[in-house]
Amino acid sequence: MSLRVSMSYVDDQKFKITNQTENQLLVDMYSKEKKEHLSPMELLLSALTTCAAVEIVSMIKKRKRNFINIKAETTGLRVENPPKFFKSINVKYLIYSSDLTEKEAERYISLSLEKYCSVGSTINQKTAINHSFEIVR
Amino acid sequence: MSLRVSMSYVDDQKFKITNQTENQLLVDMYSKEKKEHLSPMELLLSALTTCAAVEIVSMIKKRKRNFINIKAETTGLRVENPPKFFKSINVKYLIYSSDLTEKEAERYISLSLEKYCSVGSTINQKTAINHSFEIVR
Repeated sequence: MSLRVSMSYVDDQKFKITNQTENQLLVDMYSKEKKEHLSPMELLLSALTTCAAVEIVSMIKKRKRNFINIKAETTGLRVENPPKFFKSINVKYLIYSSDLTEKEAERYISLSLEKYCSVGSTINQKTAINHSFEIVR
Repeated sequence: MSLRVSMSYVDDQKFKITNQTENQLLVDMYSKEKKEHLSPMELLLSALTTCAAVEIVSMIKKRKRNFINIKAETTGLRVENPPKFFKSINVKYLIYSSDLTEKEAERYISLSLEKYCSVGSTINQKTAINHSFEIVR
């Protein structure tokens, strides 16, 4: 089961990615003032957060709980020295629901991040994946 | 040293990411026919490929070698069963240069993927990262 992307060069710090269905993505490593797109390490945080979010929403709906909205804030903590990998990532989900219980939210989030999400499962040997959440009524 | 992104909900299989410099990214998990953006696992391949590409270009230029272009094809092989993490990723770089030697290319690519790139260093405990290359004159 394989997945493929192609990369082309835009400039020394900007690249274009195309996937197998011809969808595109620009990535840059510009400094703050000049930045236009996400950087590689931001893509990694994005991949983890969205990968688990899909599973969380699916579980809430399967259990017939009310679902209004979901948001997240994800923070990655890097080691000080190069290659500065993520030693930990904390994902905080805000779930808007009238009847989801704390216990259910905890269970769905931890199952998604730790068990079902392919991205989490790829990085979890090197990176501690932590989570927290808030249910908004 | 921390990095942060925020996620908001578009629909059950589509999310928007915003980084700290307000750059945005859409991610979807739609099936082929409907797909508009990259999926989380494609983001991971993109992150690895571009992260190392920046380093490779920088090394070629520092050593005053001719540099015309760089492209890449990246294939991730997933395990069969959920959570289907990447057991290996192969990145093939095409480097367009009139004077870069095979030995230099091999060295710059392996150093980038295995030593300098933060993404590679985050995933390399679970995922074997392989590479190949071609120099185009």
